[in-house]
Amino acid sequence: MTGDLPTAAKAADILERVRKARPRVHCLMNTVVQKFTADGITVVGGIPSMTTSPEEIESFVAKADALTVNLGTLDAERRKVIRLAIEIASASGKPWIVDPVHVDYSPSRLAFARELIALSPTIVRGNRAEMSLVGDVPNAVRIETGPVDHLRDAIRSVRIVNGHAWMAKVTGTGCLSGGVIAAFMAVEKDALTAAASALAVTGVSAELAAKQSKGPGTFEAAFLDALSAISGDDIVNHARIEHEQG
Amino acid sequence: MTGDLPTAAKAADILERVRKARPRVHCLMNTVVQKFTADGITVVGGIPSMTTSPEEIESFVAKADALTVNLGTLDAERRKVIRLAIEIASASGKPWIVDPVHVDYSPSRLAFARELIALSPTIVRGNRAEMSLVGDVPNAVRIETGPVDHLRDAIRSVRIVNGHAWMAKVTGTGCLSGGVIAAFMAVEKDALTAAASALAVTGVSAELAAKQSKGPGTFEAAFLDALSAISGDDIVNHARIEHEQG
Amino acid sequence: MTGDLPTAAKAADILERVRKARPRVHCLMNTVVQKFTADGITVVGGIPSMTTSPEEIESFVAKADALTVNLGTLDAERRKVIRLAIEIASASGKPWIVDPVHVDYSPSRLAFARELIALSPTIVRGNRAEMSLVGDVPNAVRIETGPVDHLRDAIRSVRIVNGHAWMAKVTGTGCLSGGVIAAFMAVEKDALTAAASALAVTGVSAELAAKQSKGPGTFEAAFLDALSAISGDDIVNHARIEHEQG
Repeated sequence: MTGDLPTAAKAADILERVRKARPRVHCLMNTVVQKFTADGITVVGGIPSMTTSPEEIESFVAKADALTVNLGTLDAERRKVIRLAIEIASASGKPWIVDPVHVDYSPSRLAFARELIALSPTIVRGNRAEMSLVGDVPNAVRIETGPVDHLRDAIRSVRIVNGHAWMAKVTGTGCLSGGVIAAFMAVEKDALTAAASALAVTGVSAELAAKQSKGPGTFEAAFLDALSAISGDDIVNHARIEHEQG
Repeated sequence: MTGDLPTAAKAADILERVRKARPRVHCLMNTVVQKFTADGITVVGGIPSMTTSPEEIESFVAKADALTVNLGTLDAERRKVIRLAIEIASASGKPWIVDPVHVDYSPSRLAFARELIALSPTIVRGNRAEMSLVGDVPNAVRIETGPVDHLRDAIRSVRIVNGHAWMAKVTGTGCLSGGVIAAFMAVEKDALTAAASALAVTGVSAELAAKQSKGPGTFEAAFLDALSAISGDDIVNHARIEHEQG
Repeated sequence: MTGDLPTAAKAADILERVRKARPRVHCLMNTVVQKFTADGITVVGGIPSMTTSPEEIESFVAKADALTVNLGTLDAERRKVIRLAIEIASASGKPWIVDPVHVDYSPSRLAFARELIALSPTIVRGNRAEMSLVGDVPNAVRIETGPVDHLRDAIRSVRIVNGHAWMAKVTGTGCLSGGVIAAFMAVEKDALTAAASALAVTGVSAELAAKQSKGPGTFEAAFLDALSAISGDDIVNHARIEHEQG
């Protein structure tokens, strides 16, 4: 199976394809980090859109190459729009990712996350507290992000040992990574490889950015600079994609 | 007609008047870039407000000197508020600008943009894809922004050849320019001259900012610095306002 | 009473306690500055949350240690959620702060602010225009922020003479300070001392940040850096907490 495992070289190749193909990513994104996520998708080469209007969602998802569903700032209206967007994406075979933000705060949100997971997302990504509640996601790539990111699907298990502590001090780096993963899925059908590559690219970018920064505020700007400028060599030299024993 | 054409000297003068008069600009702005737009209006000298609440919009528009209507993240509630805000602005003769964001994604949004344009906005501003769908806007100043900005009204045609490629990598620079144009319209009745001046000021600021930046993330911060600090000499020395042959 | 007055040493101590305790702050925050406020709370050591959904607010406030109620971008839905959140916070004795943003723009918002103030918030904070309309707040700490911040409760009166002019050029510094005050209230029961300490910490951070900045854009990033890195010595050396004669 080694041939099918993600590598730094594949990550560099997928980023290059994102930059050329300029995939459209529609984001049902919490209101807090819409701009930061849009900026992240843009600087890696994608084209973000963000509407959550029920009368427009169909047109926007129809134009998109991938969909990100983030459960932050969830309300009744947004639940309806999310269901509709997933229906459209699924019907046309577009990849989609669910980010079960703060399901550890709200039982009703956890129930909604489970409802969505039953609809077979391509990927589910959360932090440790969130993913421990979500549990197994049999038909999806499961990602738990943190100081080390853990990814697995039915047969493979991978970890990404890149990143920087300041990522946890900038609101929305996890949400942004959901958008970048979607852009990578849009050009790479192997979802585990796409996601591992996206997380390696964001993690290495964070490491490069931290060297240019004095704290979390200047880090945020430098992180976008690094995501924009990161080269294939940077990825090959710094990515730490490790394959776990099954 | 040369005397009525925008010039760098006029742009410098209008910016100075914005800084002195501190015009209030109410923005019906998409949720993605509300803060970035508010920051842009503030650093050029205006006072932004952003509410989209139907029960408060009348008070806010009544206090404003100009209105920006941005069609991003549009929903049914926002359509109602936009109609109400335009009615109040029109009744009191306040200038207003429409930004038909992403009408190329959504037929219902395009129809709504056309409804608003029939209400005689002072200015309509979009990118090439958006403005090609919008078509002619007989009673308004028509602006198509891009690497070169094209402005025209019934008798004049002007282009602004300032700016920097990183503007396209920062979500919301176009939306922000809509807010800055509104601030300039609030102090200058000739809408084409106000808009050309605003776009020259933002374009030159972007050029100055790019020299202080390492990528789109640091550029965003430097752009706000430059918009805040730009001098009349900067404008006169760098603005490229060209008059097209009729 | 001197022993009960806020001092720089107490401010340094309270910040240290925030960093250790990592209090959760739920924010009913205007949509414009949600991320900036969340970043501010995070870098001082707190954990922010931001939902305004009526079906989730109870769970989020139940998990929080303090509540910030900001009246920007107010609509009917948000009024309901605010009332609900305050009821839950009050019932469990959690401290909460009201920020009557732009009550000088909207009579209906001013009436709502008065309704909330009658519910006995721990603190009310606004700028001069806002607080002059709000008037006295008998059972709360009253804060009027500006170039100099004025704080008073039933028996004490304090002013903070820290800060930098660029704070007024960055949208949301006042809103952010409301979030930081909440984090400080979560670990310090004396609300006037908590608030004076939070404002001294943000004010000194702004002064340190301005030295690293070229304008309001780079200042915003440097301000978050400074809030993250500020030391007890920085506070003791630079905080200007003055006690007014009663």
